[in-house]
Amino acid sequence: MPHITLNSADPGIRGLIRYRPETGRPMGELTEVLLHGPSTLTPGERELIAAYVSALNECRYCTSSHSASAAAQLPGGMALVEQVRGDPGGAAISAKLKTLLVIAAAVQDSGLSVTPGQVAEARAAGATDLEIHDTVLIAAAFCMMNRYVDGLAAITPEDPAVYAAGAQRLIKDGYVPPSA
Amino acid sequence: MPHITLNSADPGIRGLIRYRPETGRPMGELTEVLLHGPSTLTPGERELIAAYVSALNECRYCTSSHSASAAAQLPGGMALVEQVRGDPGGAAISAKLKTLLVIAAAVQDSGLSVTPGQVAEARAAGATDLEIHDTVLIAAAFCMMNRYVDGLAAITPEDPAVYAAGAQRLIKDGYVPPSA
Repeated sequence: MPHITLNSADPGIRGLIRYRPETGRPMGELTEVLLHGPSTLTPGERELIAAYVSALNECRYCTSSHSASAAAQLPGGMALVEQVRGDPGGAAISAKLKTLLVIAAAVQDSGLSVTPGQVAEARAAGATDLEIHDTVLIAAAFCMMNRYVDGLAAITPEDPAVYAAGAQRLIKDGYVPPSA
Repeated sequence: MPHITLNSADPGIRGLIRYRPETGRPMGELTEVLLHGPSTLTPGERELIAAYVSALNECRYCTSSHSASAAAQLPGGMALVEQVRGDPGGAAISAKLKTLLVIAAAVQDSGLSVTPGQVAEARAAGATDLEIHDTVLIAAAFCMMNRYVDGLAAITPEDPAVYAAGAQRLIKDGYVPPSA
């Protein structure tokens, strides 16, 4: 049960956005640019970073939601997403994405945990400055989203079908609700 | 030195916003609503929550910046801000604000660390649902900002006068740059 009285039964961050649209709108716009907007990283790769960080933060709603979105947009599907969450270094993803996940994990711990060596490895694997920037900000943004969702004990459905349906909606409409 | 090549010498998050305005604009809008927009918590109280969380995350730029903004807007000035950062429970602030800082510290650790008991204490001290919501989101948002700034090793000036001048600019113009 949420810690505060919401104005809908919408699950996870959707219920929080509906409760406080003034903050929900810019958060949706930020997520849209980071995960769904133009980028040299595919939407599937970016959703994978979001799912990975959310799993490190043990946020069940965000992990389920972004795992479903990543799975729907990556050829390896949910098996690949679970492989990445369990052992990113051994997963069937590009060397570049592996180095970006190392940076994302550092950011999840603390911004101060990111080292020049990690950034040099990413660059050596072909990552651009903008890709490094966006990886840091995606990881940082999910340290916000995860804390927001769990800090207010937002509604977290059990049924995987809810998240699969949400993924299809996000792929179609993006992160800014059509009514915005 | 920043981990990536920025396009200005602007310090802290200002340099990052200038590098990537597409993400900077919604982040500025979110901060504007949370710290500067209409609220039953004063701007000084909200800046204090931001400074407190930034100090817990050991983000020197954000701690200096939001401490300066809080100090400029609270009767107790920087002495009060330092008292709160060192010992919030013993500081000369309202009982309600103390309970909100307990929630903010929990969020800084993990969203899962917020307990129904902490929320009940805040409510007993007079906090509304919206104040509890905004406290959780301010704390969560600074877990993003702090990681963003330090994860990219943004420029962090030493001179307190830089932060004091920034505080005056923020009080006047808010968090959305006039050019936006």
